[in-house]
Amino acid sequence: MSTPSALERRPETRLDLGRFLNPRGVAVVGVSSDPARIGGQALRLLTDFGYSGSIYPVNPKYGEVKGLTCYPDLARVPRPCDVALIVLAASHVPGAIEQCGKAGIPFAVVLSSGFSEVGAEGRELQSQLVAAARRGGVRVVGPNCLGVLNLKDSARIGFGGTMQLTALKSGPVAMATQSGGFGFGVVAIACHYGIGFNYVISTGNEADLTLLDWLADLIERPEVAIVTTFMEGVADGRRLNAIGERALDLGKPILVWKVGNTGAGARAAVSHTARMTAGYELFRAAFRRGGFIEIRDVDDLIDISKAFLIGKRPRGRRVCAVSISGGAGVLLADRCIENGLELPPLSEETAARLRETLVSFASVANPLDVTAHGYNDNFASYSRALREVLADPRIDMVVARAPRGSVAMSWAQGLIQMLKETDKPLLLNWPTAPDDNAEALRFLEENGVPCILGPGRAVRALAALSEFSEKQRAWRSRAKRAPQRAVARRALDLAGATGTLGEHRSKSVLRQYGIPAVNEVLLAPAALAKLKSAPLPFPVAVKLESPDIPHKTEAGAVRLGIPNLAAMKEAVQSILASVRKFKADARIDGVLVQEMASGLEVIVGAVNDPYFGPTVAFGLGGVYTELLKDMTYRFAPFDAETAREMIAEIKGAALLNGYRGGPALDVAALADALARASLLIADHAERIAEIDINPLFVREAGKGVVAADALIVLKEKTD
Amino acid sequence: MSTPSALERRPETRLDLGRFLNPRGVAVVGVSSDPARIGGQALRLLTDFGYSGSIYPVNPKYGEVKGLTCYPDLARVPRPCDVALIVLAASHVPGAIEQCGKAGIPFAVVLSSGFSEVGAEGRELQSQLVAAARRGGVRVVGPNCLGVLNLKDSARIGFGGTMQLTALKSGPVAMATQSGGFGFGVVAIACHYGIGFNYVISTGNEADLTLLDWLADLIERPEVAIVTTFMEGVADGRRLNAIGERALDLGKPILVWKVGNTGAGARAAVSHTARMTAGYELFRAAFRRGGFIEIRDVDDLIDISKAFLIGKRPRGRRVCAVSISGGAGVLLADRCIENGLELPPLSEETAARLRETLVSFASVANPLDVTAHGYNDNFASYSRALREVLADPRIDMVVARAPRGSVAMSWAQGLIQMLKETDKPLLLNWPTAPDDNAEALRFLEENGVPCILGPGRAVRALAALSEFSEKQRAWRSRAKRAPQRAVARRALDLAGATGTLGEHRSKSVLRQYGIPAVNEVLLAPAALAKLKSAPLPFPVAVKLESPDIPHKTEAGAVRLGIPNLAAMKEAVQSILASVRKFKADARIDGVLVQEMASGLEVIVGAVNDPYFGPTVAFGLGGVYTELLKDMTYRFAPFDAETAREMIAEIKGAALLNGYRGGPALDVAALADALARASLLIADHAERIAEIDINPLFVREAGKGVVAADALIVLKEKTD
Repeated sequence: MSTPSALERRPETRLDLGRFLNPRGVAVVGVSSDPARIGGQALRLLTDFGYSGSIYPVNPKYGEVKGLTCYPDLARVPRPCDVALIVLAASHVPGAIEQCGKAGIPFAVVLSSGFSEVGAEGRELQSQLVAAARRGGVRVVGPNCLGVLNLKDSARIGFGGTMQLTALKSGPVAMATQSGGFGFGVVAIACHYGIGFNYVISTGNEADLTLLDWLADLIERPEVAIVTTFMEGVADGRRLNAIGERALDLGKPILVWKVGNTGAGARAAVSHTARMTAGYELFRAAFRRGGFIEIRDVDDLIDISKAFLIGKRPRGRRVCAVSISGGAGVLLADRCIENGLELPPLSEETAARLRETLVSFASVANPLDVTAHGYNDNFASYSRALREVLADPRIDMVVARAPRGSVAMSWAQGLIQMLKETDKPLLLNWPTAPDDNAEALRFLEENGVPCILGPGRAVRALAALSEFSEKQRAWRSRAKRAPQRAVARRALDLAGATGTLGEHRSKSVLRQYGIPAVNEVLLAPAALAKLKSAPLPFPVAVKLESPDIPHKTEAGAVRLGIPNLAAMKEAVQSILASVRKFKADARIDGVLVQEMASGLEVIVGAVNDPYFGPTVAFGLGGVYTELLKDMTYRFAPFDAETAREMIAEIKGAALLNGYRGGPALDVAALADALARASLLIADHAERIAEIDINPLFVREAGKGVVAADALIVLKEKTD
Repeated sequence: MSTPSALERRPETRLDLGRFLNPRGVAVVGVSSDPARIGGQALRLLTDFGYSGSIYPVNPKYGEVKGLTCYPDLARVPRPCDVALIVLAASHVPGAIEQCGKAGIPFAVVLSSGFSEVGAEGRELQSQLVAAARRGGVRVVGPNCLGVLNLKDSARIGFGGTMQLTALKSGPVAMATQSGGFGFGVVAIACHYGIGFNYVISTGNEADLTLLDWLADLIERPEVAIVTTFMEGVADGRRLNAIGERALDLGKPILVWKVGNTGAGARAAVSHTARMTAGYELFRAAFRRGGFIEIRDVDDLIDISKAFLIGKRPRGRRVCAVSISGGAGVLLADRCIENGLELPPLSEETAARLRETLVSFASVANPLDVTAHGYNDNFASYSRALREVLADPRIDMVVARAPRGSVAMSWAQGLIQMLKETDKPLLLNWPTAPDDNAEALRFLEENGVPCILGPGRAVRALAALSEFSEKQRAWRSRAKRAPQRAVARRALDLAGATGTLGEHRSKSVLRQYGIPAVNEVLLAPAALAKLKSAPLPFPVAVKLESPDIPHKTEAGAVRLGIPNLAAMKEAVQSILASVRKFKADARIDGVLVQEMASGLEVIVGAVNDPYFGPTVAFGLGGVYTELLKDMTYRFAPFDAETAREMIAEIKGAALLNGYRGGPALDVAALADALARASLLIADHAERIAEIDINPLFVREAGKGVVAADALIVLKEKTD
């Protein structure tokens, strides 16, 4: 895809793409009688795979193709015709879109390449295409895409090798992909391993319809239970976030495979699609809160889809791992812990009943190891153990090793019966080759019991279920709360200000939103030199106030812990000398004398991201945070309760809660400051580009927080 | 497995288990004519799968079984008979082992359960079994195991469902597993996906032969190129480490799947270091330095085995990722970076030649995207691009997407030809379902080109190759160095000392090994109260010296930054009051007055691990390190060069090298202190249990390091 479409930013009610997915008629514009050509292949995909709508070849060269009447242009095509599939050379495409508009054909798929992906000339053609679409009210997929595949209704509207595979199967999963070839390949693999897709959309250059348009449409469809997506980038981060919340509301996950996340990756994304990509961290912020599950490989897509298709959701994150072999149980337990799941002890009642059922040396614990003696009774006691565990109120879901051998099939039948009586999800880890006891495997999977080969993969799939349910619960509880504004919108006195504000002025802006800052006085250097008494109690800090020195430490413009008046005057001279060396022409607004503050150092920052809008970042202060990238993000504005969630997310969160005998710190005040910072940037998004409060000191509980330094950067434009 | 065998700790030359793996004759002791019983199944596994050695059923009940002469006892069995396969009830097993000894049968496999895994009675039987083995010089696998499988020579010596699978295939991989059922299941899966195994050993309770015995044997075998292992634990960590080094020397990887890593890892210990140094962390220390590749799921085993079986090893970590679709290239690039691989730009010459070959808008970069125009010339330009990239001296290995479609097979044939001319490994990421272009896939894999479905999985396999080669290079360079002792062995004055040493005494031990500590004086509280002048320049720290208060801060026994004599005396009183409250009967050896030190805080610790022996731990000081577990470990003793490797491994290493404009710190002195600490604990392993230097301050380069606090814990036994 190319530059983000202006359309994507329009506030819009849901665009119904139903007729696009399942058209009553499709015109193939630029059809060819040669099946080796794209125009021939596109026709064959409609004629040979069971599409039941009308097919209208369009090409002035032919009167008939493959026994179908061929029309000279779109104006002559009979109605209803919902989609024009365009396979013309790039230069003819804008004209064809124009014709669609005139003919009242609402949707077009442009397979042709030669647009923004090939340079300036192509970009110009793409602009013409978009202009024609806007004029005619035509919604377009592509150009430079593989098309729209509807396996439910056998409408294969596109081209490409994988689109021709007969092994593709229909099912309640949908995919929208920004990389057509890659995405269709993934679909082929997933179909091979049992996942069926109703819809697959290759979005191409996204001249008009974007990935987000498709995600927003697909998630609403009753015939879609899971949406999957291969994503390089999106222009409207807030809409992505909103779609994630809608997914939680609907209870349908969006499995998102985001690429271009690392340095080299991001650069490559730029050169490939000539498109800016917002930072991965902000995508993750959207993914983590919304109904997204991040996936990282084909297996994830397959395993996690199977887990969701069970249709049962865990009430909590408590797993019981059940095995016939100690090693496998320990392994499953390791993976559960690593995935943030819990393995609580079984309830007393369950344990007591299990002791009656199992051999004396079986481990009645979690993981539950029934031992190889499970073989001795043809897994009857293993089945009883599973039943007990599923009934245990302390357990939310189960991962179990499947038995193999001659009893596998009858055991499987028993399991399916047993699972009818529980609403807890159960996954099996298949213990042998997929063609060993293949009949049992097929039977289990067809009856909603995923049989996953790798133990780690099985647990990862359970963890995805748990993650989704947990996010749903959090979202519902957020949705119930009335949003609490910590502070009413205030006008800021920024008249004439531009670029970087000095520290003193930055803090005055913070104070207007109720974020406390250290006591300080701003003095002219000359006035300071004449002082007879302390402007504040010693010790103090002395800093230079200059809009031209946003990073004071490296300019030698800061002195801390100054004990008396003489030292203070000395410090000012020394600072002035340093700064003259560092930047001779720096504007000097005065000298700041500040009280020394202390507490746990944290950073509260905010940016006005071009994709995600006003966003607040939070982390512990100091070099470790930067080295270890222990930061968390939220889209502004938000309230203090959301801020508390942020605070709990960083790895260093324990430091705030009375770590190693230290006092508990004022998390309430910190949350309040975060919420206020979010309101400040959100209320004034048109003026403020960045906010940096670094450090903010967090004191003991009840004693508040205080900003010791701050930096606000305004947008270039003044108002 | 059960308790570690005493044997494992014997220093031993290599035990040759060749006749165990490929016996000239096998006696089945406790054979049954009923194929449903284990004794019948075990016989059938020898008779029905092509074993060419002699088979000797042993059971006084039969004269003949399955047409074979049945012997009443082992004494009557003809020679040579190298292995007795024992399927008797547990109580009869020690007697049978006794008979092996008398009959001169050197090896036995005990399938029977009912030993240490079932409680006290079983443990007693297992001791009898071991005693009988020792007396008779018999080496035993098991009990409670699935046996020894040799697919190369069709010797299936054991029982179990997966052992009977005809689909198991022979090949240059070997597995030793501490979980029989699990391990054989993994073998079945791996065989299904194309990995062949010459040997599989289920080690069971390890009453005699242990996992390490098998790893040590298998790695030496010419018919074994890769050893894989499923490991719950081993008793002799140093031997594990040595086997890892041998693997590097031989150039054969050991793919290790370690379980039991989460949960109650922390041990009861006095020092901070000892609490953070237990279990899995030390296994990882061995894995990371030796020829081990840690695997976490079945797919890892399959993919990484395929990568090693290419037989080519990368000279560095520089990858080129080649694709026909931008999205796939970006994805491969992301995964490379995440796996610590590098994607350097191509050389000028390569880039120039590629520009001639590829379409103008192809991205001549790394990842290299030849674009879908690759399809236009039947992938001829794609092949040329691969050839150029393989020839580029800046590139050590290649991961590429395979093309699909009708040209796949001829393209594959060209690729195989091309790869004959390079010594760089190349992996393909298969872009579609495994049954799409299946013929090409099979052809490629049979000719040494792994075709891996998941892009992430493909890159992970390349990363394993790179990791192994890098460790080999590091090991070779270490092996060339003469080990440098930083300090000669010194006798320590520890007469009468036991348990925890006070800080002052701990530091005097450090000083004996040349580890600098802060200047300090130890005074009696009464003497201190009478002082007229400062014992050290102010400011000073005051601490209580008591062997009963290893953690002084929590007892209120530390005051820092004391500015003058009066404050010092006050501090002593206040400390004494705090300590009386904390632990009324604490022995008080005096009051320590110390100079205040500063620098970057680090922790140097050492423990005498029961499995791994003397081990040194290193990390940055402060709460973050503990929270973020940013520590690294080495087995003692080692020299300063190894210490420098440790220092470079922690995430916070950048802080030592002049981070954010700060000065570079004295890494040389830090490395020296680590090496000295390693010698101290290694030289005195019989006396010292734990060492904690926390904090050690690291000053600017040239200014050294200094221990501000220290704690040494002696072993319980006094000498």
